[in-house]
Amino acid sequence: MENLTTLMGKYGVEGDKLLFKILNSGNFLQGIPATNIEHRTSNIESGNPDYKELTPYIAEKGLRYDLTVPFARFVVQHQNELIFPFKRYQIQPVWRADRPQKGRYREFFQCDVDVIGSNSLLNEIELVQIIDEVFSQLGMNILIRINNRKILAGVAEVIGYPLKLTEITVAIDKLEKNGIEKVNEELLHKGISAEAMERLRPLIRLEGKIKEKVDFLSEFLNASEIGMAGIEELLVIKNHLKDLDLKNKFDFDFRLARGLTYYTGTIIEVKAIDVPIGSVCGGGRYDDLTGIFGLTGVSGVGISFGADRIYDVLNELKLFPDNLESTTKLLFLNFGEEEEKFCLKLLTHCRKSGIASEIYPQNIKLNKQLEYANRKNIPYVVFIGKDEMTTGELKVKDMKTGIQQNMTFEELKNFLLL
Amino acid sequence: MENLTTLMGKYGVEGDKLLFKILNSGNFLQGIPATNIEHRTSNIESGNPDYKELTPYIAEKGLRYDLTVPFARFVVQHQNELIFPFKRYQIQPVWRADRPQKGRYREFFQCDVDVIGSNSLLNEIELVQIIDEVFSQLGMNILIRINNRKILAGVAEVIGYPLKLTEITVAIDKLEKNGIEKVNEELLHKGISAEAMERLRPLIRLEGKIKEKVDFLSEFLNASEIGMAGIEELLVIKNHLKDLDLKNKFDFDFRLARGLTYYTGTIIEVKAIDVPIGSVCGGGRYDDLTGIFGLTGVSGVGISFGADRIYDVLNELKLFPDNLESTTKLLFLNFGEEEEKFCLKLLTHCRKSGIASEIYPQNIKLNKQLEYANRKNIPYVVFIGKDEMTTGELKVKDMKTGIQQNMTFEELKNFLLL
Repeated sequence: MENLTTLMGKYGVEGDKLLFKILNSGNFLQGIPATNIEHRTSNIESGNPDYKELTPYIAEKGLRYDLTVPFARFVVQHQNELIFPFKRYQIQPVWRADRPQKGRYREFFQCDVDVIGSNSLLNEIELVQIIDEVFSQLGMNILIRINNRKILAGVAEVIGYPLKLTEITVAIDKLEKNGIEKVNEELLHKGISAEAMERLRPLIRLEGKIKEKVDFLSEFLNASEIGMAGIEELLVIKNHLKDLDLKNKFDFDFRLARGLTYYTGTIIEVKAIDVPIGSVCGGGRYDDLTGIFGLTGVSGVGISFGADRIYDVLNELKLFPDNLESTTKLLFLNFGEEEEKFCLKLLTHCRKSGIASEIYPQNIKLNKQLEYANRKNIPYVVFIGKDEMTTGELKVKDMKTGIQQNMTFEELKNFLLL
Repeated sequence: MENLTTLMGKYGVEGDKLLFKILNSGNFLQGIPATNIEHRTSNIESGNPDYKELTPYIAEKGLRYDLTVPFARFVVQHQNELIFPFKRYQIQPVWRADRPQKGRYREFFQCDVDVIGSNSLLNEIELVQIIDEVFSQLGMNILIRINNRKILAGVAEVIGYPLKLTEITVAIDKLEKNGIEKVNEELLHKGISAEAMERLRPLIRLEGKIKEKVDFLSEFLNASEIGMAGIEELLVIKNHLKDLDLKNKFDFDFRLARGLTYYTGTIIEVKAIDVPIGSVCGGGRYDDLTGIFGLTGVSGVGISFGADRIYDVLNELKLFPDNLESTTKLLFLNFGEEEEKFCLKLLTHCRKSGIASEIYPQNIKLNKQLEYANRKNIPYVVFIGKDEMTTGELKVKDMKTGIQQNMTFEELKNFLLL
């Protein structure tokens, strides 16, 4: 939860709409100026209620849209206690008032890594290394795409619309989803001339090796200082990464835009190659983010893993290990009160020895208890009745083979710890 | 986030007030019947706006108040996929629209453990074992208090108000916070006669050993079937626990009530002995919780650890290990572009070997880089300039002693892995 003043205006017009707002506690109608009420009411009667005008009066707090803006707020608030460059990771849920669909949730977990207080491109390189390592360990095939907002700014400049960077970025961002026709429509609608769009065309079609694409852009952006700076940053990153034996594919893509307005330099996006589900990780550099909260001149860069989409991909590709669903190794069957008491002590010993074990909580029919063990994939059960309590010879059954053998508790422990 | 219909009415009148409600997305004013608007508006003009009437129209969702009710909703929804008795743990934030103060937060983390689908008291016993184990490992002194709602129901019956169990429970729940005077006032206000309160008095003052208290109550509740059932449950739990060598103190307290209305049997509460901060863990048995969502006859029992309060206690008692704040073991100092490239490979090796290490991201003044290492408690830094790159003899400095020695990268790795 954050104050809405912290969140509003940081994610573009679309983002503001997708913020979940929390109704003020208690009598939220108190404190609304009468004129607002009257105005609003007459609008309701006319069928056109002005809810936007009312919102700030009845909702002061909102749910996190991402972890980056709250992080920037945190950094500014604690600037005197933090040691810069400040690195942190953070795993928390975020919310978006979106229409839920595959890969798009209203409540989902982000896992963020940021470095703030350093404009060195080494940070970008380390973040790409983290991405590479994480997805290698998960066994997911990915493509890491990278671009630079300065290149996009250069393009906007060169085609004659330096002030329409955001509009152009937002439109290009939808290229993959909506196709070139829709993007052109949007650009036209935003006031970009047909001639400028014609200049853009070869860029949008740009394919090939990184070197070829960079060469083409270097010529294209020749007259733009910011554009050339973007290309240089990109090359530094590329050269470092080339040396670091990444396990995953890495590409430069001019069309990568990422909608969030706060990025100013490098932008990074990761897609799962085998499952079409949108990006599973993304991020970039933001030079001005803490500036909005009063701390200027502090550059940061960060990435965010989308845990739920990654979960979906792992699930769809069956990449979760088989044994994840069997957690208990030994079930003590329950034959009554006295046996319970006896077993509870052994159970405690087992757990202390690191053997995940449980006792069936009730003395119900044996086949019901065995069915529970089967359904939960518990590999061993132990029968301890009056006889076993006396002799100390416990009956242990392997649920897979059905083979039953007698052993003492010490033997059982050693057997399961093997 | 949950539907408000799931949350409302589950936490008593007080709880409903403390639910954070989320404003519907888009035009939340659409769909409000005109009569409601008119009615509400005239009330606003009269200075008495009826916000409660408006709320259901503009807010359909709310934030989790605890994890138990959403868990019950989950169990009912997935009843055909789950294996009963179903055990789960869950760690998530919850929200309460309370006035924030020490130990009371509007957003905080609960860590829940529940068993659902078994009315065996073994589950209660295992939960107490978990509590005992957790706080022992954290090094916190605690008192585990236990009671049973059936005993409270018996008391209500015996003093002549069987139907006022909730009111009596809610009032007694505030005993510790508000004192006996206020509780009596509240009981009087709730319609409990002075005579009944007089009968209650010796109970409220009840002190001594568990056996003495139980003996007293057994006589007091003699005529109440439900009350005697509560005492029997309590004794079963006590007898089992006695055998299990708990490391923490355990007591029975009739005055323990716990406000949440859904408990029906055992109730458990844990206090930190050394820090007055309210309960750090609590829970109990609920026989009817899933019934509200359409799955009847399923009993459950669970506990919830308050992570933020536990954090506060550990902090106040300085129980966090000293070395928690130093995570990096080795800092590569940064002397320029070529050195960076050289170091980045070594850094990657270090990390793969399990040595937490970082590179200072910029080639700034050496004393600034060393200051960073000092402030972050990084024990070793390594100097790698042009000379070191050529000879392979790296300069390693111990930041505590100031002693500097030369070693190869292999030697450095072995040294840090010791």
